[in-house]
Amino acid sequence: MTITGTQLIGHQDIPGTGAQFHAVDPVTGKTLPVTWQGADAGQVDRAVQLALAAFPIYRETTLTQRADFLEAIAQAILDLGDELITRTMQETGLPRPRLEGERGRTVNQLRLFARVVRDGDWLDARIDHAQPDRKPAPRSDIRTRHIPVGPVAVFGSSNFPLAFSVAGGDTASALAAGAPVVCKAHPAHPGASELVGQAIRSAVRQCGLPEGVFSLLAGPGNDLGMALVGHPGIQAVGFTGSRRGGVALMQAAARRPVPIPVYAEMSSTNPVYLLPGALAARVDDIAQKFVVSLLGSAGQLCTNPGLIIALDGPDLDRFVNLTTAGVQAAPAATMLTAAIAQAYHSGVSKLAAHPGVETLARGQNADVPAPCQANLAVTTAQAFLADPETLGAEIFGASSLVIRCANTQEFLAIAQAIEGQLTATLHLEPGADDALVSMLLPTLEVKVGRILANGFPTGVEVCDAMVHGGPFPATSDGRTTSVGTLAIRRFLRPVCYQDIPDNLLPAALQAANPWNIHRAER
Amino acid sequence: MTITGTQLIGHQDIPGTGAQFHAVDPVTGKTLPVTWQGADAGQVDRAVQLALAAFPIYRETTLTQRADFLEAIAQAILDLGDELITRTMQETGLPRPRLEGERGRTVNQLRLFARVVRDGDWLDARIDHAQPDRKPAPRSDIRTRHIPVGPVAVFGSSNFPLAFSVAGGDTASALAAGAPVVCKAHPAHPGASELVGQAIRSAVRQCGLPEGVFSLLAGPGNDLGMALVGHPGIQAVGFTGSRRGGVALMQAAARRPVPIPVYAEMSSTNPVYLLPGALAARVDDIAQKFVVSLLGSAGQLCTNPGLIIALDGPDLDRFVNLTTAGVQAAPAATMLTAAIAQAYHSGVSKLAAHPGVETLARGQNADVPAPCQANLAVTTAQAFLADPETLGAEIFGASSLVIRCANTQEFLAIAQAIEGQLTATLHLEPGADDALVSMLLPTLEVKVGRILANGFPTGVEVCDAMVHGGPFPATSDGRTTSVGTLAIRRFLRPVCYQDIPDNLLPAALQAANPWNIHRAER
Repeated sequence: MTITGTQLIGHQDIPGTGAQFHAVDPVTGKTLPVTWQGADAGQVDRAVQLALAAFPIYRETTLTQRADFLEAIAQAILDLGDELITRTMQETGLPRPRLEGERGRTVNQLRLFARVVRDGDWLDARIDHAQPDRKPAPRSDIRTRHIPVGPVAVFGSSNFPLAFSVAGGDTASALAAGAPVVCKAHPAHPGASELVGQAIRSAVRQCGLPEGVFSLLAGPGNDLGMALVGHPGIQAVGFTGSRRGGVALMQAAARRPVPIPVYAEMSSTNPVYLLPGALAARVDDIAQKFVVSLLGSAGQLCTNPGLIIALDGPDLDRFVNLTTAGVQAAPAATMLTAAIAQAYHSGVSKLAAHPGVETLARGQNADVPAPCQANLAVTTAQAFLADPETLGAEIFGASSLVIRCANTQEFLAIAQAIEGQLTATLHLEPGADDALVSMLLPTLEVKVGRILANGFPTGVEVCDAMVHGGPFPATSDGRTTSVGTLAIRRFLRPVCYQDIPDNLLPAALQAANPWNIHRAER
Repeated sequence: MTITGTQLIGHQDIPGTGAQFHAVDPVTGKTLPVTWQGADAGQVDRAVQLALAAFPIYRETTLTQRADFLEAIAQAILDLGDELITRTMQETGLPRPRLEGERGRTVNQLRLFARVVRDGDWLDARIDHAQPDRKPAPRSDIRTRHIPVGPVAVFGSSNFPLAFSVAGGDTASALAAGAPVVCKAHPAHPGASELVGQAIRSAVRQCGLPEGVFSLLAGPGNDLGMALVGHPGIQAVGFTGSRRGGVALMQAAARRPVPIPVYAEMSSTNPVYLLPGALAARVDDIAQKFVVSLLGSAGQLCTNPGLIIALDGPDLDRFVNLTTAGVQAAPAATMLTAAIAQAYHSGVSKLAAHPGVETLARGQNADVPAPCQANLAVTTAQAFLADPETLGAEIFGASSLVIRCANTQEFLAIAQAIEGQLTATLHLEPGADDALVSMLLPTLEVKVGRILANGFPTGVEVCDAMVHGGPFPATSDGRTTSVGTLAIRRFLRPVCYQDIPDNLLPAALQAANPWNIHRAER
């Protein structure tokens, strides 16, 4: 494939007319080949109009057609071969094994949604049969299926250039739901985005689908995104990124003449509770694995463990000593972009300057354009509870704050004080820590999307039971998940058919059940 | 029961401190016994704090406990006996048979949700078992259940003083989900509201639940509702009422530091398509049944048929003649309140004054404080398409506008031009009208929540497959329904448990499946 630097609007390659931009290698600071110009408002409109034209056809594809399409996308991504990996490495500074793993995850995610589509359970087909003899009034024949909401705008993330970008979880679940997608490439990796966009487009062509099923737009600033969210043809938004960006999209969507849902995955500090029994039993092991979780991908993960909460005492002292040594030894890392590195540096500096915070360790530094010098700091529960907004704010990157609690009351108060989170982690010793965990769980359940024990929150399984979501500000909508098969629900709405003749019903609801799907009948 | 005129805050009767108000008999214009004072901000806070205190206990009730509670509410409402019916008749002007039917529906709805709770499918329990030997990385044990979002604010409607009010669909589905409810009584029927509130409270006591599971607040203006929606403890809102009121709540909820979902059922004109084959086959029958549907409850139904769309010709002429005669003969009716009658009168006058509209018929009038003089008007498709905003606006009450179409292009253009709707109706002759219906359906499906054939949209069945929802402005959230068992989903969110020891898991997810519910396992 050749990276063209154009907007992929349906099957056409159209040069943008907006500001020029290009990818930068965050390791060298050097400009990478190919220059883009941002998509203009007319191009946004063209992409959405194509999506609207494709919608009535694409949403009525059979389960097999749609599943085959998702599998064709997966194969087309694999067919990009090493070019995708090398370009993504250049644009992100992420290492090959990480990106090869992420590609596998992206491909498996598409195949998983193909399975979901084939199952047909997502249709949530329901049939209440007519009761013509019911008294005092007969009951009509009432049937419901779910249909997609309409064209979806997907915003590629910076930190998962494959799995949460052009063909990532939002796109896979929207396409699985039957919604055309207009994707905004993240400007930090436009080349990787275009390659994947070309792969999707080739699958659209191969499957004989209307070209408007997928378009990929690119642009350097916020205008493109705002134009997309404001377009009357767009019916939902998927986004992974910063709290500021996500909140701006939420507000823009709420201000529209016809408001639309925004699914923004934004901000989380992912508290990790070290329970006393667990610390006593295996502090060394926990400390070692925590440092690995903190440093992976230079901490640029939504589920990075940003808060460690534990009861004061010699076991916590040992944890602090071990992790301090681990972070001091952390090699210098490169972040995704210079802007992210700058924000990280600024967040760490603000934390270090806080009167209630003591910096424990900094990792190695390096003279690169986007450095990440790992950070470990400590505070007290009292200091945290006096200023949870500052001390609980996400620092995107490898930074974590240990909170020393004087007693279990403070332990619980921290759980009460934190904002909505993607995850909470409990390191616990079965039996010994049960009482304290039982007190924590009811609070954590209403604050977070996923509670895990004796592991670390980084590494999000893509499966039926996964919830990668959580109350605001972790996401814009705590009723949903952006990872796992439940993500398809975000893009669906129910439509009810009452006494419609069988031949006019959609296949999913016809008497003969031609799609052979599960239907709840009464 | 005695109507006290107080706020029912948990188990306490507390007099309000705000503006005085009282119920008015819309037939006589006379003030009814008992004077209320509006709830103040402190009382809102007290009710929400009690709900927050009740939440951790109520949300973990067993399926049986919660279902028993819903059934106890149903019985307590029946135990109110005729006092509920007579007071509601006085406060609303609605006739006894309608209110007895509505009480039956309210009670059945509570019992239906009791069945839903017992089934346990609403938990959507999912288990992905651990795969310790998986390569390259083992899979954790990952389990998900749904929990309620938190305390819910429910706004009673004016037009269904029982079925969409204090113990109506929003309250029933929220309580079924495990969410405590703080209800705002509609000020037009505070006595009926208080009686039902007392019934719920007696069920709370009888079932040994914490008092904060339910509170009922009353007040005359908008301040109380805004205080409720703005309270940080409220996590979702259920509302049935005007577009202006619903949009105000949506905006207030979006402006909160932590935005919350609003489920507002607001505005619909419920287009009725008369297809040529059906008109040819049975115009008299359709005309007669349309007039019945238009006039029922003085047209004060969300699903009242406000637009009739048909192809010009002698069959439509006959339909117009028959319905003109029917509406002219319509007896004078009384609306729910003088304010609603005023808004109706103003809407009808505005329609009549529109240059593209001809008034066909007015019903009988009467010198009552809240009169409804039925209205039938006609326009052309061209006039409608030139000003769909004015001509497509809901007139709450017995008013309908016939749209004469010159050709099928106009027929389809009307479907494109209308806003989101609760319903669309097709009067069709199987076979003869199939081609035209097949062209209409794809457009209607993306505009409405329910499509029905050969009936009228009034009369909404409460069942598993019902969708009483639809794209904005029919509702605030077209992904949901406010009638039927799917309504429970509005108040739920998923929580995921990863590698949590079995004894610390909620019962719904424990290995032994002690609740014996369906769980999707892989």
